[in-house]
Amino acid sequence: MKHESIVLTGDRPTGPLHLGHYLGSLKQRVELQDIYKQYVMIADIQALTDYFDRPEMVRKNVLEVCLDYLAVGIDPQKTTIFIQSLIPEIAELTIFFLNLVSVSRLLRNPTVKNEVAQKGFEERLPAGFLIYPVSQAADIVIVKGTIVPVGEDQLPHIEQTNEIINAFNRMYNKEIFGHVTGRVSKVPRLSGIDGKAKMSKSLGNAIYLSDSADAIAEKVMKMYTDPDHIHVNDPGKVEGNVVFNYLDIFDPEVEVVTELKAHYRRGGLGDVKLKRRLIDVLNTLIGPMRERRAEFARDPQAVMNIALEGSEKVREVAARTMDEVRQVMHLNYTK
Amino acid sequence: MKHESIVLTGDRPTGPLHLGHYLGSLKQRVELQDIYKQYVMIADIQALTDYFDRPEMVRKNVLEVCLDYLAVGIDPQKTTIFIQSLIPEIAELTIFFLNLVSVSRLLRNPTVKNEVAQKGFEERLPAGFLIYPVSQAADIVIVKGTIVPVGEDQLPHIEQTNEIINAFNRMYNKEIFGHVTGRVSKVPRLSGIDGKAKMSKSLGNAIYLSDSADAIAEKVMKMYTDPDHIHVNDPGKVEGNVVFNYLDIFDPEVEVVTELKAHYRRGGLGDVKLKRRLIDVLNTLIGPMRERRAEFARDPQAVMNIALEGSEKVREVAARTMDEVRQVMHLNYTK
Repeated sequence: MKHESIVLTGDRPTGPLHLGHYLGSLKQRVELQDIYKQYVMIADIQALTDYFDRPEMVRKNVLEVCLDYLAVGIDPQKTTIFIQSLIPEIAELTIFFLNLVSVSRLLRNPTVKNEVAQKGFEERLPAGFLIYPVSQAADIVIVKGTIVPVGEDQLPHIEQTNEIINAFNRMYNKEIFGHVTGRVSKVPRLSGIDGKAKMSKSLGNAIYLSDSADAIAEKVMKMYTDPDHIHVNDPGKVEGNVVFNYLDIFDPEVEVVTELKAHYRRGGLGDVKLKRRLIDVLNTLIGPMRERRAEFARDPQAVMNIALEGSEKVREVAARTMDEVRQVMHLNYTK
Repeated sequence: MKHESIVLTGDRPTGPLHLGHYLGSLKQRVELQDIYKQYVMIADIQALTDYFDRPEMVRKNVLEVCLDYLAVGIDPQKTTIFIQSLIPEIAELTIFFLNLVSVSRLLRNPTVKNEVAQKGFEERLPAGFLIYPVSQAADIVIVKGTIVPVGEDQLPHIEQTNEIINAFNRMYNKEIFGHVTGRVSKVPRLSGIDGKAKMSKSLGNAIYLSDSADAIAEKVMKMYTDPDHIHVNDPGKVEGNVVFNYLDIFDPEVEVVTELKAHYRRGGLGDVKLKRRLIDVLNTLIGPMRERRAEFARDPQAVMNIALEGSEKVREVAARTMDEVRQVMHLNYTK
C-alpha cells in the first residue's frame, strides 16, 4: 500500500520562537508547504507535560507561536496549523499504542534517557514524560504523517514510532499506517548571543523573531566576540566569534564576509562596525517578519481562528483515521 | 464542596459472567441502583490491554456482558450502562493524569506488582498495563464517581486514584473531583466447582449466569465434595466440600442446611441427593435470569442500543467534566 507523503511537525508553546527555531525548522516548513501536504501542530499538551503547573503560560504562547508561524510565512492556505489538545483522537490512539510498547523499551529510548538525566527526575520521573514518545507517534500518524522534520536527537523517537506502527499494522493485519521518515536537514549551528552552543529561552541568550529593531541592536551589541580583541588594531579571532557565526549564516554577501574575516584577523576592524553590519543583516531578515507579525497581532481572535479552523480540519482527518483503527480493533460499535 | 454520591463500577468483557461475579458484584449493583446514581462500564479498552491480539473476542463479549447485566436485574432506567471505548474523554483525562503520577509510584502499586508477577511480564511489561490504574482513575472521575465497589485487592487502585485527584485539585486550586471511596462488601468466598479458591473462566471451574439447566446439573454433579465419602453410610466432611459451600451461600433454608450438614457428617446422606438439592437451589436463582437473558437475546441490537444510549448519556456527562478540566487547565480555546 502506497501512503501519501504528508509532513507533520510542530512546536511546544512554551515561549516565543527565536532565530534558532527559524533556522532549524521554520525556514524549511515554508519551503515544504509548497511540496507536500503539511500539518503544523502547536503541542500544548506536550508543553503541559513539563509545565502542568503553568497552564496560563502555555495558553498565552499558543497565540504567540501561531503569530510566529504566520510571521515567517507559513501560509494557512498551504499548511494546516492545529492545536494538539483539540484533537482527542490523539489521546485515544496513544492509549491504544501504549499496549504495543514495553516500559523497558521506553526507558531505553536514548533521548528520553538524556532528558531524564538533564531534568534530574530520577525517582520522580512522571509517567507522562516516559510515554511522550508514544504520544508523539500518535501525533504523527493521526494525520497519516510520513515525513517528520527532526534534529538528529529526535531520530530515536522516529525509530520508536515506526516500531509502534509496525506492531500495530502487524497485529491487525492491515497496513493502516505508512512508514515514517525523519527528515534531518543539515543546518549550520547557531550559537546563543553569549557564545553558548545552544540558543534557548531558558539560557536567556536568544534573538526572537518578535524582537524589536532596538532589542536586536541591543542583543547584537552584547554579543560575545573575541575577549582578547581589545583595541581596534588588535588582531581578532573569527572562530568562536558569535558575530561571524551569524554573518556566515545570515549575510547573503559571502565574499564581503570573507573579506571582513581576513580584516578582523589581521586587526583594524572594530567589533562595533562588524556588529552594525550584523544588525542590518538581521533586520533585513526579521524586519518583514516583524511587520507581518504586527499586522496579524492586531486581530488576535482572527489568528486563533486560523488555529481553530485548522484543528477542525484535523479532527475530520483524525476521525477518519480512528474509524480505520476502530474497525480493525472491532471497536466500531456505531457503524 | 460537597460532591454527589455516584457509583462507578464495571467489568472487562472477556467472557460471560459467572456466579462469582454475581455474588461479588452484580447482586450489590442491583441493590445500589435503588440508592445511588450508578454507572456500569463495559471496559473494552481495558480488556484489550490484555487481549489486544483478540479484539473480536472482546467485541463479542461486550454484548454477552450487557446481556448478563440485564439478566440479573440491572435496570437501564436506573443504571447507566456504557462502553468505555465510546468515551474518548477518558483517554484525554488519562493523558493529563499521567503527568501527576511517577513511574516509580506506578511500579510500587502492590496490585500491579502482583499481576505483573502472575503474568510473568518481567522485561516485557507493556506500558499500557503499567498505567492502567491511571486509566481507572479517569474512568471513575469522568462521571464524577465517588463510590467504587471493589474487592480488597483493588483498594490500592482507589488509593492511587485519590492521590491523582488530590494532586489535580491542588494543582489547579479547585476541588473538581470528590474523594473516591472503595466500597468493600463482605461476601462469602465462593470456590470453583473443583474446590479451587477462585471461580474463573481460565480455570474452567465456573458456573455461568447463562448456563442452561442441563449445564448446571452437569457441573454440580461433577462438584468436588469429600473424596473419602465413598459409600452413602460413610461419615462425610463438610469443610472444603464445595456443595456445602454453595448451599451455605445460596440456599435460603438455613436450618435445613444445618440439618443436612449434621446428617452428612454422621453418614447416611449421599452426594447425589445433596447435589440434587443444590441444582434446585441454583436453578431457582439462575432460572429467572436465564429467562430474562433469553428474552433480551432475541433482539441483540436492542441490547446494544441500551449500551449505546448509555454511552451517549455518559458522553454528555464526560463533556461537562472535561469542560471543567479544560477551563482550569486553560485549554478552553473554543469557549
